[in-house]
Amino acid sequence: MNRSTLFKNILQKNSFLCIGLDTDKEKIPSFLLEYEDPIFEFNKRIIDATKDLCVAYKPNIAFYEAEGMEGYLSLQKTIDYIPDDILIIADAKRGDIGNTSERYAKAFFEKLKCDAITVAPYMGVDSVTPFYNYPNKWIIILGLTSNIGSKDFQLIQDEHKQEVYKTVLQKASLWGTPDDTMFVIGATHPEKFKEIRELLPKHFFLVPGVGAQGGTLKEISKYGMNDEIGLLVNVSRAILYAGNNEDFDIEARVKAMSLQKEMEELMYASMMGSGDDFMDIDIDGLELDGDVNFDIELD
Amino acid sequence: MNRSTLFKNILQKNSFLCIGLDTDKEKIPSFLLEYEDPIFEFNKRIIDATKDLCVAYKPNIAFYEAEGMEGYLSLQKTIDYIPDDILIIADAKRGDIGNTSERYAKAFFEKLKCDAITVAPYMGVDSVTPFYNYPNKWIIILGLTSNIGSKDFQLIQDEHKQEVYKTVLQKASLWGTPDDTMFVIGATHPEKFKEIRELLPKHFFLVPGVGAQGGTLKEISKYGMNDEIGLLVNVSRAILYAGNNEDFDIEARVKAMSLQKEMEELMYASMMGSGDDFMDIDIDGLELDGDVNFDIELD
Repeated sequence: MNRSTLFKNILQKNSFLCIGLDTDKEKIPSFLLEYEDPIFEFNKRIIDATKDLCVAYKPNIAFYEAEGMEGYLSLQKTIDYIPDDILIIADAKRGDIGNTSERYAKAFFEKLKCDAITVAPYMGVDSVTPFYNYPNKWIIILGLTSNIGSKDFQLIQDEHKQEVYKTVLQKASLWGTPDDTMFVIGATHPEKFKEIRELLPKHFFLVPGVGAQGGTLKEISKYGMNDEIGLLVNVSRAILYAGNNEDFDIEARVKAMSLQKEMEELMYASMMGSGDDFMDIDIDGLELDGDVNFDIELD
Repeated sequence: MNRSTLFKNILQKNSFLCIGLDTDKEKIPSFLLEYEDPIFEFNKRIIDATKDLCVAYKPNIAFYEAEGMEGYLSLQKTIDYIPDDILIIADAKRGDIGNTSERYAKAFFEKLKCDAITVAPYMGVDSVTPFYNYPNKWIIILGLTSNIGSKDFQLIQDEHKQEVYKTVLQKASLWGTPDDTMFVIGATHPEKFKEIRELLPKHFFLVPGVGAQGGTLKEISKYGMNDEIGLLVNVSRAILYAGNNEDFDIEARVKAMSLQKEMEELMYASMMGSGDDFMDIDIDGLELDGDVNFDIELD
C-alpha cells in the first residue's frame, strides 16, 4: 500500500488507529477455547467489529510464535482475513546481516504477505536495506520506543550531545524515503514529539504506548501530526481485552470507536488550526458530524 | 546446558566451533530437492558429518521463516535431531517490550527447546530480562556485530568518548551473569578483542565473521580467549557449502575438521603460554596429537 492510499484511508475513516493483534490464549474469553483455532476466531471477531474504525492491524509476531506451528497457522489465517484496504504491519522487530535480513523480508513480504514490518536498527544499514527490495511495502524502524528500557541506550548522549535515537532517525531516514519508511516513536515520550517532527517532517510515525503504557493521544497529536496526519497510533490490549465475555467484540468496538472519535476530533482540530490553540479545543464538548469529510477540505 | 558442561565439551572435543545452520534451498546440492524435506535432509547429513567436531549448532531462524510453515517443520526436526550434548543456539535476534519478549522466550525455549537465543539490545533492560526466566538457558546479546553496518550505531562515541557497543556490554552484563549470558562479538573487529576481554573477563563470546566475512581465528583467539576458552566461533557458509555434490557432507566434514584442528592448536598454545609468544607459534608447523586431553592439564 502506498502513502497516498494510506492517507486517503485515514481521511475516509477519520481515523489513524492501528489495532495491535497481541492475541493471547490466556486472555481471550474462555468460550473461544472450544473452537478449533481460538486465536483466529478471536481475531476474526475483532476484525469484523473494528475494520471500519482503523487503518491498520498490527499482529505482534511473538504471540503467534509462542504457540508454535498452530500459532503460525492462526497468523496466516488472520492476515488472509484482513481486508485488502487495511495496512498489515508485522510487528517482528527483525534485523540481521544482509543475507539474513533478505530472508526475513521474504518471510514477511512474500510468504505472509504483510504490507509492513518493524525492524531493529542496532546492526545498521545492511541489516535494514534488504527490506527495501519490495515495492509498496513499508519498513518501520525502531526510533524511540515506549518501554522503560528505551532509556538504556536510545536516550544516551553521543559525543555531539545528541541522543542516540536521534542519530538513528537521521541516518536511517536516508536509507529510504517517507514513501517507504516509518519510525516507531513511543507515546510515553510526548515531550520529544515536537523535535522529532521537526527532524522528520514528512515521515509517518507508528506510535505505541497510548493506553496500557500511558501517553495521551492529545499531546502526541498536537506535536506529532503533519499535513498528512503522519501518525498511526497503535492500541492493543485496551481494545482486545475491553471485554471478556460473549460480547467482547462489541466491547472492543466501543473502545475502538471512542478512540476513532477522539482521533476525528484531533484531526479536525489540526486542520482548523495549530500551535497553542490546538490544545485549547475542548474535545469532550466538541460536537462533530461523523460525516465530515476532510477529503473535500484538503483537496 | 550450564557453563561447566559447555566448558567440559570444549575440552573433550578440543573445539570451540559453532556451526551455523543457515540452510538455503537455493544453495544445497540439487539432488536433495527430491526429498520430502530437503532442508532437514541437508541439516541431518551436516550434523551426522560434524557432530564430533563442534560444540554448538546455530540455526539461523530467518532461513527457516523464509520457507513459511515448511521451514518451521524443518527447523523443529533439525533441533530434535541435534544430540543433547551440543548447545543449540536460535539465532533469532529478538527483542521487544517485556510482555512480548516473554512470548519470544516461550517460543524458543519451550516450544522449540533451544538452549540459547540471540537478542538485540536496542530496546533495553525490559526487552532482555524476560529471557532469563528459564534455568540453564543462555541469552546471547548483540554487542559488536561483524557486518559493515556495525559502524552506524555500535561504533559511535557517547559523551564520555566511549563507543556505544561498550556501554551495551557494560550495562547488559549486569542483567545476567557469565553463567547465563554471552555476547556477540564479530571477528571482523579483531583489534577490539583485547579491550572487550578486559571489560568482560568471564563471559563467553559468540564470534561470527570468521570465513565468509573475513577475520582470523588466530587473532581472535590471541586476544579473546580466557581460562575457560570463552569463545564460540561460528562458521556457517564455509562449512555448509564446502561442497555441492553427493559428497557435500564429507566436504563439510573436511572443512570443519580443519577448523577444529586449528582450534585445538590455538587452545594448546593458549594453555602453554600467553601474550606475544602466542602469536609466535607456527600453527601450520605444529604437530599435535589429536588425543591431547586438556581435562587432565586443567583439573
